[in-house]
Amino acid sequence: MQETNPHETLRGVFAAALTPMDGDLNVDNKAFAAHCRRLLEAGCHGLGIFGTTGEANSLSAKERAAALEALVEAGIPGERLLPGTGSCALTEAVWLTRNALEAGAAGVLVLPPFYYKGVGDEGLYRFFAELVERVGDERLRLYLYHFPQMTGGVGIGVPLVGRLVESYPEAVRGIKDSEGSWPRIERLCRELPGFGVFAGTERFLLDTLRAGGAGCISATANVTVRLARRVYDLHAAGEAGEAAAAQRRLTGLRDALEAYPAIPALKSLMRSLTGEESWRNLRPPLTNLSGESEERLLEEARSLRLAEYAP
Amino acid sequence: MQETNPHETLRGVFAAALTPMDGDLNVDNKAFAAHCRRLLEAGCHGLGIFGTTGEANSLSAKERAAALEALVEAGIPGERLLPGTGSCALTEAVWLTRNALEAGAAGVLVLPPFYYKGVGDEGLYRFFAELVERVGDERLRLYLYHFPQMTGGVGIGVPLVGRLVESYPEAVRGIKDSEGSWPRIERLCRELPGFGVFAGTERFLLDTLRAGGAGCISATANVTVRLARRVYDLHAAGEAGEAAAAQRRLTGLRDALEAYPAIPALKSLMRSLTGEESWRNLRPPLTNLSGESEERLLEEARSLRLAEYAP
Repeated sequence: MQETNPHETLRGVFAAALTPMDGDLNVDNKAFAAHCRRLLEAGCHGLGIFGTTGEANSLSAKERAAALEALVEAGIPGERLLPGTGSCALTEAVWLTRNALEAGAAGVLVLPPFYYKGVGDEGLYRFFAELVERVGDERLRLYLYHFPQMTGGVGIGVPLVGRLVESYPEAVRGIKDSEGSWPRIERLCRELPGFGVFAGTERFLLDTLRAGGAGCISATANVTVRLARRVYDLHAAGEAGEAAAAQRRLTGLRDALEAYPAIPALKSLMRSLTGEESWRNLRPPLTNLSGESEERLLEEARSLRLAEYAP
Repeated sequence: MQETNPHETLRGVFAAALTPMDGDLNVDNKAFAAHCRRLLEAGCHGLGIFGTTGEANSLSAKERAAALEALVEAGIPGERLLPGTGSCALTEAVWLTRNALEAGAAGVLVLPPFYYKGVGDEGLYRFFAELVERVGDERLRLYLYHFPQMTGGVGIGVPLVGRLVESYPEAVRGIKDSEGSWPRIERLCRELPGFGVFAGTERFLLDTLRAGGAGCISATANVTVRLARRVYDLHAAGEAGEAAAAQRRLTGLRDALEAYPAIPALKSLMRSLTGEESWRNLRPPLTNLSGESEERLLEEARSLRLAEYAP
């Protein structure tokens, strides 16, 4: 990491951490801290908490802030955390972001406001610009969160990314790109050297690192973390051949898991790996896998020896 | 209104009220109360506040609750208000709904959780069912808010509406249908007689009333209210021919206004009608009309004599 680079960025393998919930569907703070600790011990460089996988939009702002505070109190280091602090409401995004900075978070991951459609880049630029200005804190390290499939098409186009970086080079440090398009990630790495480009899937981990990107922030890394970390370390050590082989195996796991609805499937796998029934708890509108679908998933996980790579 | 009908519903012409904001983009409570008062005096049976037009999703839950409280304190009768209390977070929707009931609101208008896509009817059913159960208040009058264009395709299908009404006939009283499909509204009226079907546009006002629906909740009613009310009253008086003529004129206004982005256009019109510059204030990601576009809009409004129908 180049400490003197104004564009210094987080790097590495980040799991988009699941949020364990209790029987009343409230965040289970103890189980959450335990899960985060296991992920870090298994090799995550950091954790994207309160992202799509963390059911963040199913939690109120207050619930997100309280859960972050509880994590830090439980000893999870803030500098390993990249909490989602986006909201369709500018005021709420500001509040959540300030709160995350107070908790010592390494950065924040921010969705565009996703309710209004077709608003154009100018409106999205104004949202992010106002966010940076209103937060008004030089500790701010903002990672844009691009996931048009979930935001109903409201995306952060490459020119908008460039404009934001140009306006706020100290604050706007990177992007999580979950669109799933390699050409787009490659373009971001090429056009914005030094910018913290994270692929939203470990499928592109090695390619992203080779292109000069920062790494990946991925849902499935909740269960593939050890293998994803191996890819990262082999690449860092210059073991190109071994890195590629590990990446092929990692991509195979991702292929298998992608056939299922991500969050219910990952919670099912965690239940199976830990034996803790409470991993079944999901906030509506998410629902559990059917019994049949879950059985098939667990069968596949066994045959792929997923347990070796899980935290 | 059949007081003894368990499916008693609100009825009439509702404006989806704009939310005036001050220079810091906070809700301008005084201007909001003044706007609501003018709309009621101009003939609105009630007001859908904190809907899409009200920039509700650009406000935090706390801001929405505080603005509702301020409206009621300013003398706007709660029984004329239908606040939006939806949120992607179940807990927040529950909190907002309870808050609206405490403020004496006639009912609440609730979007489905719109972040996760492709969740299926079961997950949406669970969300609304949990909402009703957790609010646990017999005063609850829930109006479903169907607007798939804004929720990225997350809609409330007719079978799901039917299932919710069957499970919670006392609570689930109606729907605002903003999809813009007349066959769908007609089907809702036919399959659920007595249910409070509101068209999301005054374009379908007369048709909806004829089909046994409740009326309309419309953005453009912020400026067309007097004419929309005339349609309603002529229909109620059995003046079929005059009602149809008034509806044709109303549809003409709607046609003209629909060519512009709704919220910026309506705020421009209000600025022009009232002379109050603060009507230009919009929260990002919304942006004002370009000067040229605004000029064209105001020109059209003049030639359509919009001022005669506005509050």
